Amino acid sequence: MQDSGSSITSSMASRWTLLGSHTVSPAAERLRYILGDDDDVPTPTLFTEMDTLQHDGDEMEWKESARWVKFEEKVEEGGERWSKPHVSTLTLHSLFELRTCIQTGSVLLDLEGYSLPQIIVDRQVADGLIAPDLREKVSFVLLRKHRHQHKKPMHRSLADMGKSNNSPTSECVWSFFDHVLDHAQSRSMNDISDTPSTDQLKNKFMKKIPRDAEASNVLIGEVDFLEKPFVAFVRLAQATTLGGLTEVPVPTRFLFVLLGPHGKGKSYNEIGRAIATLMVDDLFSDVAYKARDRDDLVAGIDEFLDEVIVLPPGEWDPKIRIEPPKKVPSADMRKSVLNLNELGQVNGTAGGPAGGEDEEMPAPHELGEELQFTGRFCGGLWLDIKRKAPWLLSDFTQGIHIQSISAVLFIYLGCITNAITFGGLLGDATDNYQGVMESFLGTALAGSVFCLLGGQPLIILSSTGPILIFEKLLFDSNTIDYMELRLWIGLHACLQCLILVATDASYIIKYMTRFTEEGFSSLISFIFISDAIKKMVGSFKYYPINRGFKPDYITTYKCECIAPDQVSTPLLLLHATNLSCYHTCLDWSQLSKKECVKYGGTLLGNACKYVPDLALVSFILFFGTYSMTVSLKKFKTSRYFPTKCRSLIADFSIIISILVFCAVDFLLGLETPKLHVPREIKPTRPERGWLVMPFGKNPWWVYLASSIPALLVTILIFMDQQISAVIVNRKENKLKKGCGYHLDLFWVGILMAVCSFLGLPWYVAATVISIAHIDSLKMESESSAPGEQPQFLGVREQRLTGIMVFVLTGVSIFLAPILQYIPMPVLYGVFLYMGVASLAGIQFWERVKLYLMPAKHQPDFSFLRHVPLRRVHLFTLVQIICLAVLWILKSTVAAIIFPVMILGLMVVRKMMDMMFSQHDLAWLDDILPEKDKKEKGGKKKKENKNPLPPPVKIPMDTIDPTTDPAPSVTPPTQLPSSDCE
Amino acid sequence: MQDSGSSITSSMASRWTLLGSHTVSPAAERLRYILGDDDDVPTPTLFTEMDTLQHDGDEMEWKESARWVKFEEKVEEGGERWSKPHVSTLTLHSLFELRTCIQTGSVLLDLEGYSLPQIIVDRQVADGLIAPDLREKVSFVLLRKHRHQHKKPMHRSLADMGKSNNSPTSECVWSFFDHVLDHAQSRSMNDISDTPSTDQLKNKFMKKIPRDAEASNVLIGEVDFLEKPFVAFVRLAQATTLGGLTEVPVPTRFLFVLLGPHGKGKSYNEIGRAIATLMVDDLFSDVAYKARDRDDLVAGIDEFLDEVIVLPPGEWDPKIRIEPPKKVPSADMRKSVLNLNELGQVNGTAGGPAGGEDEEMPAPHELGEELQFTGRFCGGLWLDIKRKAPWLLSDFTQGIHIQSISAVLFIYLGCITNAITFGGLLGDATDNYQGVMESFLGTALAGSVFCLLGGQPLIILSSTGPILIFEKLLFDSNTIDYMELRLWIGLHACLQCLILVATDASYIIKYMTRFTEEGFSSLISFIFISDAIKKMVGSFKYYPINRGFKPDYITTYKCECIAPDQVSTPLLLLHATNLSCYHTCLDWSQLSKKECVKYGGTLLGNACKYVPDLALVSFILFFGTYSMTVSLKKFKTSRYFPTKCRSLIADFSIIISILVFCAVDFLLGLETPKLHVPREIKPTRPERGWLVMPFGKNPWWVYLASSIPALLVTILIFMDQQISAVIVNRKENKLKKGCGYHLDLFWVGILMAVCSFLGLPWYVAATVISIAHIDSLKMESESSAPGEQPQFLGVREQRLTGIMVFVLTGVSIFLAPILQYIPMPVLYGVFLYMGVASLAGIQFWERVKLYLMPAKHQPDFSFLRHVPLRRVHLFTLVQIICLAVLWILKSTVAAIIFPVMILGLMVVRKMMDMMFSQHDLAWLDDILPEKDKKEKGGKKKKENKNPLPPPVKIPMDTIDPTTDPAPSVTPPTQLPSSDCE
Repeated sequence: MQDSGSSITSSMASRWTLLGSHTVSPAAERLRYILGDDDDVPTPTLFTEMDTLQHDGDEMEWKESARWVKFEEKVEEGGERWSKPHVSTLTLHSLFELRTCIQTGSVLLDLEGYSLPQIIVDRQVADGLIAPDLREKVSFVLLRKHRHQHKKPMHRSLADMGKSNNSPTSECVWSFFDHVLDHAQSRSMNDISDTPSTDQLKNKFMKKIPRDAEASNVLIGEVDFLEKPFVAFVRLAQATTLGGLTEVPVPTRFLFVLLGPHGKGKSYNEIGRAIATLMVDDLFSDVAYKARDRDDLVAGIDEFLDEVIVLPPGEWDPKIRIEPPKKVPSADMRKSVLNLNELGQVNGTAGGPAGGEDEEMPAPHELGEELQFTGRFCGGLWLDIKRKAPWLLSDFTQGIHIQSISAVLFIYLGCITNAITFGGLLGDATDNYQGVMESFLGTALAGSVFCLLGGQPLIILSSTGPILIFEKLLFDSNTIDYMELRLWIGLHACLQCLILVATDASYIIKYMTRFTEEGFSSLISFIFISDAIKKMVGSFKYYPINRGFKPDYITTYKCECIAPDQVSTPLLLLHATNLSCYHTCLDWSQLSKKECVKYGGTLLGNACKYVPDLALVSFILFFGTYSMTVSLKKFKTSRYFPTKCRSLIADFSIIISILVFCAVDFLLGLETPKLHVPREIKPTRPERGWLVMPFGKNPWWVYLASSIPALLVTILIFMDQQISAVIVNRKENKLKKGCGYHLDLFWVGILMAVCSFLGLPWYVAATVISIAHIDSLKMESESSAPGEQPQFLGVREQRLTGIMVFVLTGVSIFLAPILQYIPMPVLYGVFLYMGVASLAGIQFWERVKLYLMPAKHQPDFSFLRHVPLRRVHLFTLVQIICLAVLWILKSTVAAIIFPVMILGLMVVRKMMDMMFSQHDLAWLDDILPEKDKKEKGGKKKKENKNPLPPPVKIPMDTIDPTTDPAPSVTPPTQLPSSDCE
Repeated sequence: MQDSGSSITSSMASRWTLLGSHTVSPAAERLRYILGDDDDVPTPTLFTEMDTLQHDGDEMEWKESARWVKFEEKVEEGGERWSKPHVSTLTLHSLFELRTCIQTGSVLLDLEGYSLPQIIVDRQVADGLIAPDLREKVSFVLLRKHRHQHKKPMHRSLADMGKSNNSPTSECVWSFFDHVLDHAQSRSMNDISDTPSTDQLKNKFMKKIPRDAEASNVLIGEVDFLEKPFVAFVRLAQATTLGGLTEVPVPTRFLFVLLGPHGKGKSYNEIGRAIATLMVDDLFSDVAYKARDRDDLVAGIDEFLDEVIVLPPGEWDPKIRIEPPKKVPSADMRKSVLNLNELGQVNGTAGGPAGGEDEEMPAPHELGEELQFTGRFCGGLWLDIKRKAPWLLSDFTQGIHIQSISAVLFIYLGCITNAITFGGLLGDATDNYQGVMESFLGTALAGSVFCLLGGQPLIILSSTGPILIFEKLLFDSNTIDYMELRLWIGLHACLQCLILVATDASYIIKYMTRFTEEGFSSLISFIFISDAIKKMVGSFKYYPINRGFKPDYITTYKCECIAPDQVSTPLLLLHATNLSCYHTCLDWSQLSKKECVKYGGTLLGNACKYVPDLALVSFILFFGTYSMTVSLKKFKTSRYFPTKCRSLIADFSIIISILVFCAVDFLLGLETPKLHVPREIKPTRPERGWLVMPFGKNPWWVYLASSIPALLVTILIFMDQQISAVIVNRKENKLKKGCGYHLDLFWVGILMAVCSFLGLPWYVAATVISIAHIDSLKMESESSAPGEQPQFLGVREQRLTGIMVFVLTGVSIFLAPILQYIPMPVLYGVFLYMGVASLAGIQFWERVKLYLMPAKHQPDFSFLRHVPLRRVHLFTLVQIICLAVLWILKSTVAAIIFPVMILGLMVVRKMMDMMFSQHDLAWLDDILPEKDKKEKGGKKKKENKNPLPPPVKIPMDTIDPTTDPAPSVTPPTQLPSSDCE
């Protein structure tokens, strides 16, 4: 084996020469040849099992010691269990030894499964690798039984290994003829009791192995009769189930055998781990499947060596098991690189310095065809309908999932809380022309129609603050009949919306970058949070605590109802006839506070203005609901309980918290403010009917003039609706069914008109609740290979949850007896959670946090690698200032033009093009699309104006003509300009 | 360079041959030779800086691109800042190329610093490596200025690189003659403004570099005039400051230059990173310092390659920066391994399977000489005094630290809360013979004496539950004078303690293993937690909430004081003379609750039994204090604020929480229960004096008979004291000043007698408060190299904090006006925190948590790798059952024999030797020391009884005669017996 070195060298020297022109190494050339025809069927996934030979006195058996699906799982000898899946850390040593093994041992490709051990041994003898007289002994060893590691312990202490000598040895477990025998028998070995459970447990692990998988078996052993190692690499022509060789019922395709003399066991083990790791490598397994001869395999190893990552011994403790990374480079990328013969360069990027990373520019701001300006009448709307129609069936079937229940309950509670809050405020503002009842019905009607027919059914409609302020102003202009005016404004706004739809006006949304989105959604989140806290603080005012109270003086702490003087009171009494009875019939001291006031009594005493306990209980309920929800959400990543159980708890965290704190409230039995929904369907103001008549109450000019306030409403609706839609349709949410901005706006417009006729409030997309809706419907992949991280797959896009939410809202009137047990502070806690949770995913918020972190503790955000910290801080500061201005605006009456202010944000963003380089903005925000006129003008011209920057730091050899990006994917205008290099 | 391969091979083939007998490889032999004389002075630490050549139009300059102290920090080009320190992930490729570079380039060892570039270039020309006409050009490049990365951004956008062309180029910045020039100038480059701050910033980073460090500089560049690379490795005879070459004022010792033609920049960079990583490798830097020629360096690289850890490309994304590990293998270990020529084996252990880990057995249970049985009269006490005396001065000087303030305040509050609680209970139990006053004085006296003179001044003395029960029983035996009896019991107990001290009886503590310790300390922690919660729940009973209360009916909610009937009441009145006045003089409705009861009035009304708000506020204060403390403690590991600030907040977390919630309480202004300490020094029961007389009140036989209850007290004191001491002296706490079990017991005994004479309670070590004391005094290393984890160094062992705590306790009587603002619920929150925190470090608790975790989510505890899970669970179950039994016992009157029960734990532990193998127990617990008689008997016999197990799974080559463990370190009886293999 001493000659192995020279071939390593020849391969290495040819590729790994510092100065040589970039020729193709022989290994790469070989691989390119055998992997070239990619139109092949893909090779199956390999499951690798490594068994080592155990000596028990005279008895020998193969015992499973590790397995690989993608990552290594090792049998913990002492612990009798599988280790956590971890990255296989190999030694360079073992890889080189493996290479030697493949070069010098037997390589048998495309064998039949019949009498496999015999064939292997015969070949070795024929090649002169082992003496003929060892033939029998080696075969004997190879035919030993296999014992697999099962999760269930095998009660060793009871049935000790030594006692297994009596069980009959079946020498032929391997041979093809025997594999028709009962598998259980060949596997069950010396275990007498656990035969049936073994198979079941096997099946359990089968879930983790892809269906088409094949097995590769690595057998490592020390024997006393050999003087030099016996190495064989076998590929079977067909994957064959070889008895109990493999832990799982997966047919074996590859076999690697290494037997050697005693004393080098650790080395053999390492070689076994090396080949096992190679076998599960995507690239090498392809090579192994397609190799024509020994040299192809060696070339595969060389390729592998060329790509390995090396950790210096002084900086890493080899005993640490490395957790599988969140993401690994895909095999396709590695293969394509091989085809392009750029391996050298790819290697160079491994944690490479300076220029190495400038290549990964952030993906450009893509809005897709949804916001293209079609130029045709209703072109966008038509495209939206065409886009959404094919999904109509799956929009319902995909909603059938346990997660939906949680989502529906969560969003339902959010919606009715919102409906009650806004309903109450609206009732105050409009003298009950629109009250809680109207709010409920309107929410149910608008929401369910929108979710059933809208373009983006994940959006939840709701009343919003600006609308409320608008209604208030409208009602206060007393001279004109409110409901009729409102109807006409609604009709005009509907018309204007339809015009916007017909003209594809929504396309201007594409000028909305992350900056604007974040500004808007942060503001809405802050409003949610501040409202929740305000309501909480309000309860301290509503139920004031007696601060100076001393329990000992409870005797002086009273509130008495004093009968009124007969002279001053009777003015306000409704039941004037009973007046004479008051002082005689009534026991004034028995009256409640309300009755006392009603009958004109005076409340006297130091206890009257205080309400004990309620404020504090409210606080406990509010804060408890919030923090319990947060903790339960976090529970998803804890170590306790099985994954399914945890994700169920996390999904239902809000419902669980609400139930728990409703129970706490019920047990305390205090009269905390509760959720009261109306119990009867009738207008809040009895004299108004369910239908508003368009004519008759206002002068004729009002019908026309109302188009001017309608314009304000239209802008308000348009901005609110479309920004929320952009946020919902964010790339990060990985939505697959496309969006429908025009269709959304169409239905919002129609619903405005309908609601106006029925005298119900107007509805528009609610950002925070929509985000909460999406969050509660997120899907993660069930991880396949042990150790692989679950990937965020996308959102359960369907119409069912939305419809359910609003149907429930409509039915709430009948649910009143149940809902009355829910204390309001609990719901405020839910509001607080919604606000905080919707802040969580926002990059702006991450950047705000950076202000508080010293540079060395900052997380490794990609924008921090590419944009100087002070520019990041400046960008964040601009956002904070914008938000502060918006916050002040919305706190005044100017709130009505608040959505228009968002347009202001877009202007600010445009001006920031002057403060920041396009490179920085590309990382922190998105690049604004070019203006239309320029687009019409000439693409050429722009290319000249913003020339492709000379790749100063990127070595020339990375700019390969074959990888030149197609202009459609990364238009040159979106590349960083050279001034920031 | 094509020939480089063969030498790689020769070295590899000779070492990396699967079958060859284990001969020494040439590389290892070389290294062994040059590193052999280890009595040398250690080589300095190396700081490595890598500069790359930047082209700016025609101008060139060297720009810092990465640096290494131990881990790599890279300049983030875009971000203009240093990356986080990370493990250098290299490519195998670059390491082999580096090897070729060293083999073929110039290696100049022990040069003088004069005109360095010229010498290098001349040598290259002389060696024929570059053409003579390039001499000028190469020198010119080498003499370009160096620009370093500073934390402060350089305002590139303002002073662009291109504009720097005008600044005068000083070509000789490197040469020795010029380095007397102002450094700032040579470094300041084109920056006009930030010259002064540059130097300062340099100094900041200097803190991270050891004082004796030397620099190695790596220069990497692409130039257009070379056709093949120019490589030079230089070692200077003396470390020399070469102008502005290095970022920090550290003299340069090594220089690696790699210049090459354009187009391979990324490759060059990788080679530069490879040599830089090698230079900071402990082993290679030694080689570099001691190398005699080129081949020594190559041998160093080969050794390095032999030890590297390889990550497969398919399982790891090279873009991930690997965080520095918590611990890296020490260089000494690696070197010693080299000397023993066992490299092959060490490699084999890298994540190795099966047998590889059985070697690391847990360290045997070492108790040190403190618990040796001396056999001499007072031998142990004498040794204790001898051991502690030399530390006396440092016991005070080491206490002067800001952390001590926090510790003192924390423990002080714990102590006075304890003193008040126990004082109150003791007052009830003994009819105020001993009350809060006595409790305060006794705590102050006993604590300060013990901390001043005791063996382990970190132990905090306190009253404990069993003592309280004992006193109660004693007082209830009415016929005998309590104080005198108590005095005699105290005297007897003192005498018995002194006998135990004189006879070194404390040595039996060594039979106390982790099992017993954990049982005891968990139990005490549970008692703390349950007491805190009980007290909290108690306040709901003491201040009952009016559950059915409706705010509206406040008018009917009253409590009135009704004057008593004249017939039934006067019996109990003290001021009988004023009786006639009550009904005339008193306004009964104006009386407070207490007065009303006092004067015999009847409280009437539904409000009388309820107390509003207080219970809920108490709950908020209690829970708030606890959770705020926990959060602030966690804040230490958050990302926000600089490290110092964070650790300050974490250290003072309890004080901050207490202050915050005292403020909340103050602002609410409710009459929550407050901390009331006595304000005057006088016995709680006025008629007893400060001194108890020994004779006169009891019959003579009591003086003798009292020795029998004294025996119980002695056992109680002995167990309580010594177990707490064992817990405090735990190996994990890394105490350096030794312990003093005998000395501790001596003072506890003496203090018993003194307290008995003064009529004060008895004191003994309090486990939980002592653990809290230790926790609040833990020291961590300020991390030196960037990325290195701070190490737990030990505890600030000193007497000052303890003394301060008890002096403050004594002075508390004068602090009463301040202390009265502290609400009791806040202190109960502190108690809860103490209990929970003292559970945190206990392995038992970790094992309990394992019950709730599915196997695959369990943390990678070493005992889980070696002991089957079901055995671990069984062991934990036994502990839980023991704890449950103890808990039940302590809840009954049997609590008085509770410490004796700990002896029961030790018996249970002994019996577990039968249930569990010694191997399992070694991992889960400690091995019990052999019994005395056997120790006297024959060690030989035991060795025969428990023979060294045959190393079934350990390959033979690990059992090297040179590494055979000395029997004294790991006696064979502590090796795993073979039945658990």
